[in-house]
Amino acid sequence: MWRETDESLERDFEFKDFVAAWGFLSQVAILAEKHQHHPEWSNVYNRVSIRLTTHDAGNTITEKDRKLAAAIDQVLP
Amino acid sequence: MWRETDESLERDFEFKDFVAAWGFLSQVAILAEKHQHHPEWSNVYNRVSIRLTTHDAGNTITEKDRKLAAAIDQVLP
Amino acid sequence: MWRETDESLERDFEFKDFVAAWGFLSQVAILAEKHQHHPEWSNVYNRVSIRLTTHDAGNTITEKDRKLAAAIDQVLP
Amino acid sequence: MWRETDESLERDFEFKDFVAAWGFLSQVAILAEKHQHHPEWSNVYNRVSIRLTTHDAGNTITEKDRKLAAAIDQVLP
Repeated sequence: MWRETDESLERDFEFKDFVAAWGFLSQVAILAEKHQHHPEWSNVYNRVSIRLTTHDAGNTITEKDRKLAAAIDQVLP
Repeated sequence: MWRETDESLERDFEFKDFVAAWGFLSQVAILAEKHQHHPEWSNVYNRVSIRLTTHDAGNTITEKDRKLAAAIDQVLP
Repeated sequence: MWRETDESLERDFEFKDFVAAWGFLSQVAILAEKHQHHPEWSNVYNRVSIRLTTHDAGNTITEKDRKLAAAIDQVLP
Repeated sequence: MWRETDESLERDFEFKDFVAAWGFLSQVAILAEKHQHHPEWSNVYNRVSIRLTTHDAGNTITEKDRKLAAAIDQVLP
């Protein structure tokens, strides 16, 4: 589930291995560019962390973050 | 299932949409380079076709093709 | 350069190796989904072939094909 | 250039836009799995940060880190 702070939506993901994590990241990359909204994200081996915030709105959560979060949830295996 | 001809192993895949197909292709790309054995493959929207053959062995099926095919099967959703 | 037939725009690309080809394909994948227009494309090791046609327009070349072709040209190394 | 600390090699990269950054990340992903050595890395839009350390050696820099760093440098545009 996405954690909601004053500033952002955050979620951590864990996959079987790096290759599986990469399959997920590759799908999210396409979604991000399509939504014209890019995550702050990091990866180590099978773990992925994604942070969504809207810089243009003064680092708050907006509809753009919620829509991208929902789209990301749909590509989870 | 992989179709076996005199020359190659071939298999077609179908996914929900392009993004899902791309998640699969991205994993296979890593596997191919790791195995140092690269497929002949094509994609249109949600469809992917993969053909495996060993050029160095005169375009026949070798253990390299069978191993890559098995690795590909394991990243299927 | 893109070859223009009655039905499609086609172009072949050659890269240093598979990894370089994959860097290109990964960028084109994002562009394709962003344009909501997906190529017929294939890859073997360092070679990539892309064919652009508009199925909805009876397999002819439309502005959608020309725009995606132009976008693809811009991500070439 | 890679910054060297007691524990890791670190380098920041900047690209034209997200798509260009993704082309780079996609190549590094393949290299990482091929080397069986995975970076700690993050991305925001056109910026990428990579940190290399060898966990199995008590979070120090080893030959594995130097080799992956050299391979990464070779896929820079």
